[in-house]
Amino acid sequence: MASSMVSRPHLAPRPVRAATLASPPFARLATAAHGGVRCKAAADLDAHYMRRCVELARKAAGHTSPNPMVGCVIVRDGRVVGEGFHPKAGQPHAEVFALRDAGDLAENATAYVSLEPCNHYGRTPPCTEALINAKVKEVVVGMTDPNPIVASKGIEKLQGAGIDVKVGVEESLCRRLNEAYIHRMLTGKAFATLRATLSMNGIVTNQIGTGADQSGGYYSQLMKEYDGVIITSDLAKMSTLPISHEAGANQPLYIIIAQGESSLLHIPSLSEEHVSKAIVLSDSPVTVKPAGVEVAVLRQIDLESVLQLLAQRGLCSVLVDFREAGESFAALLNDFQEDKQVQKVVVEVLPVWLASEGRSNLAFGGGQSFPLKNLEHREVNGSVLLEGYV
Amino acid sequence: MASSMVSRPHLAPRPVRAATLASPPFARLATAAHGGVRCKAAADLDAHYMRRCVELARKAAGHTSPNPMVGCVIVRDGRVVGEGFHPKAGQPHAEVFALRDAGDLAENATAYVSLEPCNHYGRTPPCTEALINAKVKEVVVGMTDPNPIVASKGIEKLQGAGIDVKVGVEESLCRRLNEAYIHRMLTGKAFATLRATLSMNGIVTNQIGTGADQSGGYYSQLMKEYDGVIITSDLAKMSTLPISHEAGANQPLYIIIAQGESSLLHIPSLSEEHVSKAIVLSDSPVTVKPAGVEVAVLRQIDLESVLQLLAQRGLCSVLVDFREAGESFAALLNDFQEDKQVQKVVVEVLPVWLASEGRSNLAFGGGQSFPLKNLEHREVNGSVLLEGYV
Repeated sequence: MASSMVSRPHLAPRPVRAATLASPPFARLATAAHGGVRCKAAADLDAHYMRRCVELARKAAGHTSPNPMVGCVIVRDGRVVGEGFHPKAGQPHAEVFALRDAGDLAENATAYVSLEPCNHYGRTPPCTEALINAKVKEVVVGMTDPNPIVASKGIEKLQGAGIDVKVGVEESLCRRLNEAYIHRMLTGKAFATLRATLSMNGIVTNQIGTGADQSGGYYSQLMKEYDGVIITSDLAKMSTLPISHEAGANQPLYIIIAQGESSLLHIPSLSEEHVSKAIVLSDSPVTVKPAGVEVAVLRQIDLESVLQLLAQRGLCSVLVDFREAGESFAALLNDFQEDKQVQKVVVEVLPVWLASEGRSNLAFGGGQSFPLKNLEHREVNGSVLLEGYV
Repeated sequence: MASSMVSRPHLAPRPVRAATLASPPFARLATAAHGGVRCKAAADLDAHYMRRCVELARKAAGHTSPNPMVGCVIVRDGRVVGEGFHPKAGQPHAEVFALRDAGDLAENATAYVSLEPCNHYGRTPPCTEALINAKVKEVVVGMTDPNPIVASKGIEKLQGAGIDVKVGVEESLCRRLNEAYIHRMLTGKAFATLRATLSMNGIVTNQIGTGADQSGGYYSQLMKEYDGVIITSDLAKMSTLPISHEAGANQPLYIIIAQGESSLLHIPSLSEEHVSKAIVLSDSPVTVKPAGVEVAVLRQIDLESVLQLLAQRGLCSVLVDFREAGESFAALLNDFQEDKQVQKVVVEVLPVWLASEGRSNLAFGGGQSFPLKNLEHREVNGSVLLEGYV
């Protein structure tokens, strides 16, 4: 697994081979075929096992921050002999679980891992050593460590020990899996996703689509995956905020934006469960401290400061939950339009037409217009979910 | 083909059989199978040929009003021996083209037709007679005539002549094909679809998605299929309105809403081509008549009056093209929210975030909120198209 904190001696550098195809475990699969077909078959298999790594990694979604999600599959003679994923920060890495699962069968096997194995002593020993000790023959890596300073150190260590290494299999999938982790690593800020529900005619609504709060609904899914949710003190007052009761989940943290002391008066209405999972960010000294709630006073509340603070607290991903907009929210969203501090936009379109009476708009006079990339759409319980990147 | 204008003597009424399965042409297909499988296979084949009828019918989209789109397929011994569709009002019906195509092979064949064959003398002789004279053995009908007064008269005539008739195959598809025609027949008003383009944050924009105006883009497709487009005089002034140069197309008609005489001042800027395909609807006596443009003065401009007028002129379907909203448009849309005179909403969501500076909203204080049914979504050139029914 990757890390940003380590600088190891430079070990016998060899160029990373981007595509070492037709390695032994696959060669036997297409003995009668010519080289091109054999390579294609091997590449397809590599991609297949890497997708399985990502699938495994996602089992821990919401539990791993500040670490990334990582999955590992050990394959010997065309058969999966071990699987594992990193369940939580402080617990062993994916490779360790997969090697344990494989036991002696790891020898001469190929290890697939969605992120470059770590090469340092942190809370656990380096995964490169575990792979070397297990005598795997080849390691296939989804993507290198996103920290440019340590990137490829793990790969070099493995190669120095005589292990074949292939890098960049299903790389875009692996990058997307850890988009929040990568963003935090490179910018020192939490990855922010703006979430809103619109009617077919573009009106923001507090309502969430049918089944959205049920298990498997899109909103509850977001709440399971994101480390934190930024809301306004108005929303904290009026909503029943969902609390995750999932085993092992210590998220989401509610980040309550309260500008001006009067906003704080709302906070005590939080339930006991919420109090332990909430932090109030205020721009003024707090005289009336809400019972039991942590309060952080920032000199100025802008999106950049908030996202830096959250990254320092170990949050990789945070949802900006736009419902009924308060004054403080409009200011944050202005920051978004001006500085593009938000990385992703998720909009749920409900199958409804809303009259505008007293409803707000998801737009502000300030800032600029800008394109959203990789727009995707899918149906979730009768609504249409739109996702795009800033 | 159906019609609302005819009342024929009641011919030997027999109940319409909704599912006369396993008729001779299909029975041979599954001789070894038991009844259930045979029925399933026959029903699948019926559905297959009916979908082909609808496919044929759609070739004339935009050309048939005030008539419906109809397609016909003649099948004998499991082989298609004739196909046809109704190309344009005044020209022969689908059945006639398909029977001509089949020639003598129509004898003992099964005729599939997406809409109940007409049973009256209009601009062409009744299709029921053509089918009887061709000695077809069976007729499979997608849906009955939508006019409740004449519905099933054509079917009864065929049955009276000893022809097997099956009704209701792929009925919802056939209904959707002619949703505009059916609506006009039942209500005396044109079927109205509200069209708008929104940004991801719900702001109405005049921009249309990439490729939208290219052949095959969604907007040009709508322009090919709808009989008319309601726009404001503001839009007539500022836009280059697309003109269809397709052979046989006499649509779309531009319906320009001009409230107050000053609005009319914009109209002369229409090009010569537009002038012949435009009608101005005004609520005040016209003193400055725009050169060459037809002007109709209505006592009051509300959506219901406009849609009635358009139905009387033979338009089945009309697009309410919402871009930059003028005053007159807001009033029309208020009618929509209050009386639901619009049947369908088509929203294109562009992959863009827009600042709100000077932009309008697709919502109004008046009227009520209401659900949209059968929400569908698909990608069109990087945008997402959402369609729902009121």
